[in-house]
Amino acid sequence: MLNFKIVFRILGFLLFVEGVSMLLAMGVSAIYNDAGLMALLYSALISMGVGSLALILTKGAEKKIGKHEGFVIVSLVWVVFSFFGSLPYMLSDSIPTLTNAFFETMSGFTTTGSSILNDIEALPNGILFWRSMTQWMGGMGIIVLSLAILPVFGIGGMQLFAAEVPGPTPDKISPRIQQTAKSLWIIYLGFTVAETLLLWAGGMTLFDAVNHSFTTMATGGYSTKQASVAYWSSPFIQYVIIFFMFVAGTNFTLSYLAIHGKFEKVFKNEEFKYYVLFIVGFTAVIFSGLLVSTQLGYEQAFRDSLFQVVSIITTTGFATADYLTWNPFLTILIFSLFFFGGSAGSTGGGIKIMRVVLLMKNSYYELRRLLHPNAVIPVRFNKRSVSEHIITNVLAFFMIYFIIFFFSTILFTLIEPDMESAMGAVATSLGNIGPGLGNVGPAENFHHVQPVGKWFLSFLMLLGRLELFTVLVLFSPAFWRK
Amino acid sequence: MLNFKIVFRILGFLLFVEGVSMLLAMGVSAIYNDAGLMALLYSALISMGVGSLALILTKGAEKKIGKHEGFVIVSLVWVVFSFFGSLPYMLSDSIPTLTNAFFETMSGFTTTGSSILNDIEALPNGILFWRSMTQWMGGMGIIVLSLAILPVFGIGGMQLFAAEVPGPTPDKISPRIQQTAKSLWIIYLGFTVAETLLLWAGGMTLFDAVNHSFTTMATGGYSTKQASVAYWSSPFIQYVIIFFMFVAGTNFTLSYLAIHGKFEKVFKNEEFKYYVLFIVGFTAVIFSGLLVSTQLGYEQAFRDSLFQVVSIITTTGFATADYLTWNPFLTILIFSLFFFGGSAGSTGGGIKIMRVVLLMKNSYYELRRLLHPNAVIPVRFNKRSVSEHIITNVLAFFMIYFIIFFFSTILFTLIEPDMESAMGAVATSLGNIGPGLGNVGPAENFHHVQPVGKWFLSFLMLLGRLELFTVLVLFSPAFWRK
Repeated sequence: MLNFKIVFRILGFLLFVEGVSMLLAMGVSAIYNDAGLMALLYSALISMGVGSLALILTKGAEKKIGKHEGFVIVSLVWVVFSFFGSLPYMLSDSIPTLTNAFFETMSGFTTTGSSILNDIEALPNGILFWRSMTQWMGGMGIIVLSLAILPVFGIGGMQLFAAEVPGPTPDKISPRIQQTAKSLWIIYLGFTVAETLLLWAGGMTLFDAVNHSFTTMATGGYSTKQASVAYWSSPFIQYVIIFFMFVAGTNFTLSYLAIHGKFEKVFKNEEFKYYVLFIVGFTAVIFSGLLVSTQLGYEQAFRDSLFQVVSIITTTGFATADYLTWNPFLTILIFSLFFFGGSAGSTGGGIKIMRVVLLMKNSYYELRRLLHPNAVIPVRFNKRSVSEHIITNVLAFFMIYFIIFFFSTILFTLIEPDMESAMGAVATSLGNIGPGLGNVGPAENFHHVQPVGKWFLSFLMLLGRLELFTVLVLFSPAFWRK
Repeated sequence: MLNFKIVFRILGFLLFVEGVSMLLAMGVSAIYNDAGLMALLYSALISMGVGSLALILTKGAEKKIGKHEGFVIVSLVWVVFSFFGSLPYMLSDSIPTLTNAFFETMSGFTTTGSSILNDIEALPNGILFWRSMTQWMGGMGIIVLSLAILPVFGIGGMQLFAAEVPGPTPDKISPRIQQTAKSLWIIYLGFTVAETLLLWAGGMTLFDAVNHSFTTMATGGYSTKQASVAYWSSPFIQYVIIFFMFVAGTNFTLSYLAIHGKFEKVFKNEEFKYYVLFIVGFTAVIFSGLLVSTQLGYEQAFRDSLFQVVSIITTTGFATADYLTWNPFLTILIFSLFFFGGSAGSTGGGIKIMRVVLLMKNSYYELRRLLHPNAVIPVRFNKRSVSEHIITNVLAFFMIYFIIFFFSTILFTLIEPDMESAMGAVATSLGNIGPGLGNVGPAENFHHVQPVGKWFLSFLMLLGRLELFTVLVLFSPAFWRK
């Protein structure tokens, strides 16, 4: 039987933490003396109040937490955070309806970055800050939550981490989980501060710099400007953002190694090599394509192509150019990146480089197996052979990803009859990217999507963010049996 | 070292057979006293001549044929057949250019059914007959070639059959391979005769009846009319064709069992059950959709939906309605059927029902494995557990299918900038279906596609028809090593 009491207790604790974090955004409102102040205060009080109530009601809950409870908690925390995280939007009248506010918040916490806002600049600074914070917290959550917060309640975090990353488990960078989590958190924070300073130095206001650093490191992509990063024409600012998007899409354990001077280990990492290779390859082709098909100069063509490639492959979704206005071949190349995603252990979403590489390798090895049916030919990754079990798991992940993409697109045509737009909306939500194709492209937003469509896409964001299985398992009868 | 001599010898023999079959079409030309007569005669003489030459030059070839030779023969025979099979079109000036003639012939032999013809009725009857024959022979080839013809040269057919069907091997219906091949051939012929008689009785001319029976049983979809089956408004004719498309998309070993009265075994077959289930399910949804969104009466809506569903899932591609004019949701439902395909052991192409079911089952089982990581939970099919090796193989097949679809679509946008048309053209060629989406929909044809695009699609037809691996393995360095 599921230990509901401890589930509620942990959710209550986390909700309390969310409430506290709203006070931070309230502080920003106070500094700018803007219209978000009271909304953020009320939201914080409601969240902390409900959180406290849950803690009180579940006092003395048995601390035994198994895998089943883990799945439920991880799935529900995103939903709970998104419901309560919608309050500041609604109470400040920035986004009056629950549907839109929930979509915006889920898009934040899942670090997707799809928005329903038609006039971002009209929002109070405190609310904009909260919006960026949802992404930053979501990013931190993906890296740290299962490793650092849940162990407070006596949960062995590793099995939960395994639930969130059903693919190959990352190299353990520190034997003690809490220590690891703390290290990664410091790195995450450090990068955020570094980017903030660079963007500030590059000409952004401090406020914009902080917000964009939050959403870059989370590979989220929310901007404080309707025009996204295209608002700043400064090449310096754009290159800084490219660099940090690249970093955020890299396994954070590799950043840890790099910071400790172990560059050799970084460059030997196979996922990292392919990550760089994909970026270089796609950029080269798109760069050439832009030179041939547009009037752009070399530098701008290079910057535009590199920015879009890194923005999409890391699933950030910032825009400096509208790839829908490019030659269709270049547009579809960008769309193909929707199915790559960041590295495992980064804040990036999507299928993930490691899985893509394993799948491609296995496909090639399958041909060799066909020629030598009796030979054992295991796939090798990072110079170690990968067990058939992991391969099957990765293949199943891909398969389920594809099935969901496929049938969601079909269903979504009931809401959005244009097939390209439907494919774009589904792929960008599932991959936690942000912009899509057609009428949900980088120059558009999701405001016009029908309510039922927004709830549907919100669900896809959650599915994608939690690596499908974590959520799907809750829908399997086997989960609830016994 | 590859035994090239025997490869040439077998290809020569088969080419000779192709030449003889052209004489049959010539007979039809003679009956109708049409313009195709001399073209078919010359084509037959050239084919038989070149075939004989190859047989003479390779006399005394070592009869040792291994897996490597098998792959090469199976891949090349379709290419050789398509080149020589183009002669009747070119020599009769029905299709003057090699590109178009080759496309039409490859589309025939692979039982795809995509056409470049703008005025089918203008062709001489003998040439039309040849066109239908390419499909009928292609269908027979898929079932029988590797089991009956190649053993003449001392090849153990079963390993080749395994090459063509890398998925689960079908139940062996007869211990002796030649006997099996003969049984299946008789069934194939019997169904063709039965359909011919029914269509003739239903009001088709004998000529049209024979042609449509040929292309139905092959799940090919070539028609003697530009309007395809929509030319005949008779419900009886359409239902007859539905029935035989359904039969042609069924594993022929099941037809064998049914003919021998073993219906119980047929209905217990899991692939068959899902095949029926998918057809019923898709038809029900599309039927309802048509009732809601169009003015069609019940019978016509039912017939139109059933016809299109069966036509696409079996990869036949006959048209009685233009699904592109339907509500977008219904159109995309039909498009999703592009990725199902007929049963294993049928003449249908595509991914195949058996694989789709195994993939879906494995995805669900993966969730159960996540909950019980130490339990061994094998996928069960036809009440037997399927080995992990076969699952990996099927997953790899699907993966490669998807990779090819994906990157081919990207490449094809260079030729056909409209993404939907590109997706449709690639999916229909790879799945050996016929009609696509956008400007290659059921009411259009492939005439306007640029030459390089036609060669590219022809290659995809070959890839799809030979279950990808058979052809791809030739491109792997491992194949040519040693």
